Amino acid sequence: MSTEPKDCSRRKFLKGGILAAGAMAMGAGIFAPIGNNVAQAAETAPSNESTCNIPETPWPYAALNVERAKILGYDGYYKDRCSYGVFHAVISLLKEQVGYPYTTVSTRVLQWGATGGAGWGVLCGALAGASTAINYVVGPKRSDVEKVVNELFGWYTEHEFPQYVPPQEKAKVKGDLPRSVSGSVLCHASVGVWCDVSKYRAESAERSERCARVTADVAAKTVELLNSWHQKTFVPAYKGNESVELCMSCHGEGRSLENARGKMDCVQCHTDVDPKDLLKHIKDNWDLVK
Amino acid sequence: MSTEPKDCSRRKFLKGGILAAGAMAMGAGIFAPIGNNVAQAAETAPSNESTCNIPETPWPYAALNVERAKILGYDGYYKDRCSYGVFHAVISLLKEQVGYPYTTVSTRVLQWGATGGAGWGVLCGALAGASTAINYVVGPKRSDVEKVVNELFGWYTEHEFPQYVPPQEKAKVKGDLPRSVSGSVLCHASVGVWCDVSKYRAESAERSERCARVTADVAAKTVELLNSWHQKTFVPAYKGNESVELCMSCHGEGRSLENARGKMDCVQCHTDVDPKDLLKHIKDNWDLVK
Repeated sequence: MSTEPKDCSRRKFLKGGILAAGAMAMGAGIFAPIGNNVAQAAETAPSNESTCNIPETPWPYAALNVERAKILGYDGYYKDRCSYGVFHAVISLLKEQVGYPYTTVSTRVLQWGATGGAGWGVLCGALAGASTAINYVVGPKRSDVEKVVNELFGWYTEHEFPQYVPPQEKAKVKGDLPRSVSGSVLCHASVGVWCDVSKYRAESAERSERCARVTADVAAKTVELLNSWHQKTFVPAYKGNESVELCMSCHGEGRSLENARGKMDCVQCHTDVDPKDLLKHIKDNWDLVK
Repeated sequence: MSTEPKDCSRRKFLKGGILAAGAMAMGAGIFAPIGNNVAQAAETAPSNESTCNIPETPWPYAALNVERAKILGYDGYYKDRCSYGVFHAVISLLKEQVGYPYTTVSTRVLQWGATGGAGWGVLCGALAGASTAINYVVGPKRSDVEKVVNELFGWYTEHEFPQYVPPQEKAKVKGDLPRSVSGSVLCHASVGVWCDVSKYRAESAERSERCARVTADVAAKTVELLNSWHQKTFVPAYKGNESVELCMSCHGEGRSLENARGKMDCVQCHTDVDPKDLLKHIKDNWDLVK
């Protein structure tokens, strides 16, 4: 007996694949499959691909083990870097503890976040992986997802990374590493501050080990936050950044210059602004607002 | 006849759910489910949840329609913002054109990226959504994913946003909008530059409409890149940022000060550095490197 739902059967899959390959052959290129990817997949598609009625997120949750999250995060980093590392750690624990529907998630789809997104040094990849994992189990309101992600980001800016020390036999670099607080969620700043504090080079094995341990720390914090969210004991500890509060008193919502959005420490980039001498900042920029 | 695979059956799901609820009652709290989420889901779980043998990514691809990506991206923005908007647009087209396994993807899991990640203004959410979608169809090597994402990020920094103009009857704000090039993948910079150029406020309906059109532009570019990648006609056009090349000649891999990673325009934040007077920069920072 088939439990195949109407709308996403093998037939539909083939419609996008082999049948469309015929269409391509007839010149109707725009909707045709490309390369041999589709045909290959059609051959190897599992017999039970009828999976359309996957429930909408948020999915069920069961409390996860913080210590295991660290180990999985650390190992995941060395498999496919920070973003994959945290995502794989949290989803793997959910696969173990809950099973379906997490068993349908391919964790490889967070590869892109490494080195702050394809090497760009933007959002620390561990946070991209963590945020996506959080989004599977918190919601459906975006405002709820943002409460947990905001707390994680805020914690990250104030956390002394890395805390995790892997077991001696597992560690790629043995022993403790120097620690630093980056004040930022940017990979570029997080790595740069640590390099300056530790004196290790940005492409060294020690910096890589540091990021593996950051991955472990972020995976553990993510699990802690999710456990507390689902236990209804979640209390945000992050109070926001002082410079953001100050700058947004002119540049924020409903204020006279309302031209900025965000919560990153303003003066870490806007180094020409001294929050203790805003009069100078206003004078310096007078021509821009006149 | 059941096609249920061994490892992720309803039994396994229940193991993490109802059975564990018993364990909690016995005081073994750490692996117990929390709240009524699990029990509820067990009741409503579909009868065909046996979906473990979802193939590993990358998944099959069929050429997608760029114009439809724009419309879906625009609509998605108004449903759940930029990050969800691009992700939902691309995955929805893949659901239509390929079907399974894309039919197993919950697009809501990209809610977190809105306003550069939970309101933080970091990576433009449209790029987070796009990158995750790209990761489903490019790979399995991370270096391949990064080639496409790098091209998208580079294009974003140089693109005059927004180009898309929705049909009159659909537009929340009618007509053309002012355009700007942000030189950055940061939501904070992308929005800030546009506000300064357009003179619209950061929380205005016009700025929101601008971001809906950015979502459309990014969804379209993502589809263009994916089509070319799978047609094997992908040729990267982005040449990198000039200041990055200059600064990395000292701070980059294998160089004397190797303490930086990333590809974002350096001098957009490091405003105290004049790339045309590096001698001053070196003198100013001499004490730090001595």
